[in-house]
Parts: sequence; C-alpha cells; structure tokens
Amino acid sequence: MTYCVGLLLNEGMVMLADTRTNAGLDNIATYRKMFVFEDPGDRVIAIMTAGSLSVTQTTLARLDEAMTDTEADGSTSIMQAPSMLRVAEMVGRTLADVSAEIAGKMDRKAETARASLIVAGQRNGGDMRMFLIYPEGNFIEATPDTPFLQIGEHKYGKPILDRVIGPETSVEDAKKAALLSMDSTLRSNLSVGMPLDMVVIGKDGLRVAEERRIEDRDETFQAISAAWSTALKDSFTKIKL
Amino acid sequence: MTYCVGLLLNEGMVMLADTRTNAGLDNIATYRKMFVFEDPGDRVIAIMTAGSLSVTQTTLARLDEAMTDTEADGSTSIMQAPSMLRVAEMVGRTLADVSAEIAGKMDRKAETARASLIVAGQRNGGDMRMFLIYPEGNFIEATPDTPFLQIGEHKYGKPILDRVIGPETSVEDAKKAALLSMDSTLRSNLSVGMPLDMVVIGKDGLRVAEERRIEDRDETFQAISAAWSTALKDSFTKIKL
Repeated sequence: MTYCVGLLLNEGMVMLADTRTNAGLDNIATYRKMFVFEDPGDRVIAIMTAGSLSVTQTTLARLDEAMTDTEADGSTSIMQAPSMLRVAEMVGRTLADVSAEIAGKMDRKAETARASLIVAGQRNGGDMRMFLIYPEGNFIEATPDTPFLQIGEHKYGKPILDRVIGPETSVEDAKKAALLSMDSTLRSNLSVGMPLDMVVIGKDGLRVAEERRIEDRDETFQAISAAWSTALKDSFTKIKL
Repeated sequence: MTYCVGLLLNEGMVMLADTRTNAGLDNIATYRKMFVFEDPGDRVIAIMTAGSLSVTQTTLARLDEAMTDTEADGSTSIMQAPSMLRVAEMVGRTLADVSAEIAGKMDRKAETARASLIVAGQRNGGDMRMFLIYPEGNFIEATPDTPFLQIGEHKYGKPILDRVIGPETSVEDAKKAALLSMDSTLRSNLSVGMPLDMVVIGKDGLRVAEERRIEDRDETFQAISAAWSTALKDSFTKIKL
C-alpha cells in the first residue's frame, strides 16, 4: 500500500508521501509517489499517487508526454490548463482512461487496476486548490472544513490530523503533523515505508518552497518520532483512570 | 461498523466494545456486541462481535440454545467444553455455519453475510486464552508477542496500543489504553459509537471481575478523553521540528 497526505492551509500546502510499493508481501520496492510540475511564477502542481503502480506510472507518463508535445495546449497539458479545476479534470480523465485500459487486460483481476491521486497546486491569478481524484476520475476538493486529504492507508494517521489541523494551522505545524501522522502509520502498517518525500508550496509563491527526501536515518525525523513516542507514553502514564 | 478490542495480559483480560450498528448511513441503531457467559469458579467466557448483525445474533442465539439444551454436553455447549481451544472451535464452527446459511439466501450480496468474533476466557485448570475468529470459522490467538486482538474498525486505534501494550501491562493501564484506543476511533469514524461495554476478567478469577456500560456522559470517560486530547495537543506544541 501507500500513505500520502496533503494539507491545505491558509499559508500554503504541505504534501507528504511514503515510497513503499508491494506486490504481495515478498515483492517490496521503493518507488517515488510524489511528482512536481513547476513553471515558476506561472504555476506549480504536485501530484501524489496510491494504488496500482502500473496505473499510476502510465498516468503520470501520459500527463508528462502531453506537456512536452509540440502541439500541447490548454486542453491537453496540465501546464497550460486555464485553472486548477481543469487540471483536476484532465488528471481525472487520464487516470480513468488508463485504469480502464489496464483493467481490460486483466480479466478477473480487473478490480486491482485502480489508483487514487492527490493533485494540489496554484496557477497565477487563481487560488491554491487540492483535489483527491478517485479511480473513476471524479474528485473531491479540500475545503476549510476539511483541510486535509489522504490516500492509501489513511486510517492510522487520521486521529492526530483530526485533532490538530485547521486551515489556520501554520505550515511548520502542518509539516510536523504530517510527519507524526506518517510516523503512526509506519509503526502500525508494514506496507508503508521510508524514505518519505515532502513538498511545501507557499501561498502565491507559484513555485515549490521546499522539496525534501527524508531518509530512514534522517535526524530530524528520528528526533520528532522519538519525542512523540516519549510524549505519548508520558501522557499515557500521567492520565488517571 | 464496529470497534472491539481485547487485551490479554499477565494479570488478566480487558475487553471493550462499542454498540453502534448501521445498515447504510441512515439506519443506525444501538446493539450490544459484548456477551458474557459465566459459571463462577468453573469458567468465564466473553464474546465480542463485529460484522453482519443477522449473522452475529443468530450465532450467539445458537450458542445460547446449545448451552441450555437438556442434552448439552462437552461437544455442543461452550459451558461444558473441556478447554478454551474447544470453545473457540465450537464458536468458529457455529459462525461459519450460520454465515454460510445466510449467504446462501443472499445471492449477489452473499459477501455481506460475514462476521468476526473475539472469544476470550478461562476454564478451571486452564490458562486465560483469547481468540480472533474469522468469518470462515478459523482463528488466531493472542500471544505475549501480540497481546491484543481487534475486530471492526481497528486501524484508528492501533497506534496507541502498539506503543503502550505488552503482556506485563497492568489491568488498570490496559483499561486506560483500550478506552483511549476507542476514543481515537470514535473521533475519526462515524460508524463507531457510544455507549461502550467493558469487561475485565482477572487471571484465575474464573468470573467477571468488572462489567460496565459506559454511557455517552460517563464522567470518567469524558475526563480521560479530554485529558488525552489536551496532552496530545500540548505534546504536539512542545515538539520542535
């Protein structure tokens, strides 16, 4: 499986993805699930993927090919689309097409040819927007009421987000919350694994403010993971039944 | 859905279940999912249920009928079975039979006629044992390496258990951990709801040490829920990225 989370805050957007891919339990690999497309000053788009690797790779490859085509225009390239809504529609259509093609080859295992994406970005003149794209290509959008979206193994890491994330949360706190949400998921589910990819997009920056691969031995991640573990255990001990 | 958790500790066993049942989102009801069978001094058995209500109710009704039958013996009644392993086998067989019968009537929706159970107990002369019974009637058992079992919506509440529960955990701490695990689940998933049922069985007590329904306005539960929320938020604030 996978765990990806995106947070849409007043100050900016934070995206965090793991990199573990598995076909069964004995075929585990590391694949990037975070993809950034940037035309600084004009637009920045980040896409995170969960689900069938053949579906997500082909979807990203098609989006990429459409961008570099010499005849690309606003109806074919996400780098020329007139709005983030159009970007989401384009990505959704590509995902649904790829998924249907691959499912058509898979017979009884057709239901495994599925994937979900989180697409986040901002275009010059538009707002920051973040979408969760379902396997069928339809989507929902993050709002102030629900300022985060998750794909993959989302349940382990949801309680901490439910407690601390609101639209007014700072980007620094959102990074911390995303990492702790990932930490809980890593501890409880083998199919989610290091390293992690984190991307931060500031409001109206129209470029990536921070892009970082967090390796297994990353000292900052180890430190907050250990501090959180200690804090949880201490809090647990202090609470009286 | 449902969330039930059972903890097998050196000192005893703690079981906690919610009571929400839903068929879709607009048909929500409260049903007991915790059942206790007790012959003080001889044996005590607690069963928690998750899944299709028609399957779990019929399974429990059959087990109950078999106990009160005048010709009941060690091969038909869980109150006369010679060991907890036999109890688990008997419950598993009943569950699988009921599930198959109901699935047979359900045609295309056959896959919804499924349920899982946690069966925990002790017989005079035997050890405390706890089993998770799968819909097909097979089962796994809690061990010192994995001293807790969960059914239903188990993911939200797993991280806290992973961090604080071991076989040496005291019964008091286990009750606290079970309640906090339930609290995280209640906050993040609508299909799990108050009131809760808690049962504690002490090692070699051969009777229920504590059985309690925890209502929505239970002051102890509200207090630890609020304390945990505050502690998490404080810890979150204190950790530096």
